[in-house]
Amino acid sequence: MRNLLLTLSYDGTDFHGWQVQPNGLSVQQALCDAIERITGVRENVTGCSRTDSGVHANEFCCNFRTENAIDCRRLMGSLNAVLPDSIAVTGCIQVPGFFHARYDCRGKRYVYRVWNSAARNPFLDRYSWHYKSRLDAGFLNAQAQAFVGTHDFTSFCAAGSSVEDKVRIVSSFTVERQGDEVRFIVEANGFLYNMVRIMVGTLIEISENKIEKNKLVDIIDIKDRKYAGRTAPAKGLFLDRVFYEEAIDEKRR
Amino acid sequence: MRNLLLTLSYDGTDFHGWQVQPNGLSVQQALCDAIERITGVRENVTGCSRTDSGVHANEFCCNFRTENAIDCRRLMGSLNAVLPDSIAVTGCIQVPGFFHARYDCRGKRYVYRVWNSAARNPFLDRYSWHYKSRLDAGFLNAQAQAFVGTHDFTSFCAAGSSVEDKVRIVSSFTVERQGDEVRFIVEANGFLYNMVRIMVGTLIEISENKIEKNKLVDIIDIKDRKYAGRTAPAKGLFLDRVFYEEAIDEKRR
Repeated sequence: MRNLLLTLSYDGTDFHGWQVQPNGLSVQQALCDAIERITGVRENVTGCSRTDSGVHANEFCCNFRTENAIDCRRLMGSLNAVLPDSIAVTGCIQVPGFFHARYDCRGKRYVYRVWNSAARNPFLDRYSWHYKSRLDAGFLNAQAQAFVGTHDFTSFCAAGSSVEDKVRIVSSFTVERQGDEVRFIVEANGFLYNMVRIMVGTLIEISENKIEKNKLVDIIDIKDRKYAGRTAPAKGLFLDRVFYEEAIDEKRR
Repeated sequence: MRNLLLTLSYDGTDFHGWQVQPNGLSVQQALCDAIERITGVRENVTGCSRTDSGVHANEFCCNFRTENAIDCRRLMGSLNAVLPDSIAVTGCIQVPGFFHARYDCRGKRYVYRVWNSAARNPFLDRYSWHYKSRLDAGFLNAQAQAFVGTHDFTSFCAAGSSVEDKVRIVSSFTVERQGDEVRFIVEANGFLYNMVRIMVGTLIEISENKIEKNKLVDIIDIKDRKYAGRTAPAKGLFLDRVFYEEAIDEKRR
């Protein structure tokens, strides 16, 4: 029995997130359908995280075990031939039997894209939040440094999450402008439910003076969702990279 | 009666081209609907060209005459508020009464995007032709120089076109690689029906050795569509810039 690690990228616009849902097509279901068409068996696929409806992935990882002897390269080609155009398999490697795409994940990077111009950009409409008032990326970048470090991010976790330990290590948070686009790039060892979207929404409210500047430290300290800002829309969010131990990542890329 | 020149950009994926069609929503119809909602009058809108189904525009120009006194900036905002998300009005200026978006156009630039990688790119699926075999952009660029100059482009015009004069001046043709993307960029004083898509398809067939290299001069000379290559898919094509006399373009940008 081989354990295979797939790397995907997908446009999440038309999916109900990663995880199988009763009320709509998820990426996991589309992938399970494709694997079943090729191997003849409904395999159990484990994802590195649950992305929400509308969230995209430049890189998403998942693993499954199979008795099938198909070569990794051929499996990749066959999967791409039967998957919807909005999902691509960009890598497939064999990993040790105990490997688990979620538990063995050491960190992730998310990118949140804001189209920051008075005029809409039809080509980024699916891939960004259109925010018209001019953002000061340098100012937001300075403010966002309060997120970096080991913190209890309860204030930045959607209410109702069942996760108990809300301490996460944010290793970097960058806000940068590229022309009319402002990108929020955050790396952490793990993320709470809606964490990036609430972080971005809070920074936006600081730039709107709805939240006082230099208050992020206090908002983290208070551990209460209602003191943070609104949740930025899903469509601007991309899971950008997934980190495993070096040996796996080297083989994977 | 004012004559207004609009600059648009649009994602053509879900439209039946620019021109009003009986069997599907066109960009022109969506725009006329939007103008009618704001001015209360169904105005006659003239486009700079007829783009096909699936073709996109980074820049598209059109003009219409109106008795309405609405200020250009406000009209732009109002149009963007009622237009579908896949169309944006990025400019609106008043032009002389005799100005005509098509007849006064001095040239256009088209960009054709090819995603040139074994793996599909879900984010460029609507915006490029996925072509898996590695293309040599330098070689194709050298071949494409045969297009530059004043030529009768009958061989590169879809059969059945009713245009009589098929002489066009191609001022530049560039093929360049940017990572896994190959871009074909062509500027001319005007374009025949499917001209860019047939030019790209022919260059691709040269790289496939289906058409002999250095034969573009002969294919132009023979003035017969059947000697050129296939028509590249619509979805990779972008109308990129529209050129008018300097005074207009300066005011417009």
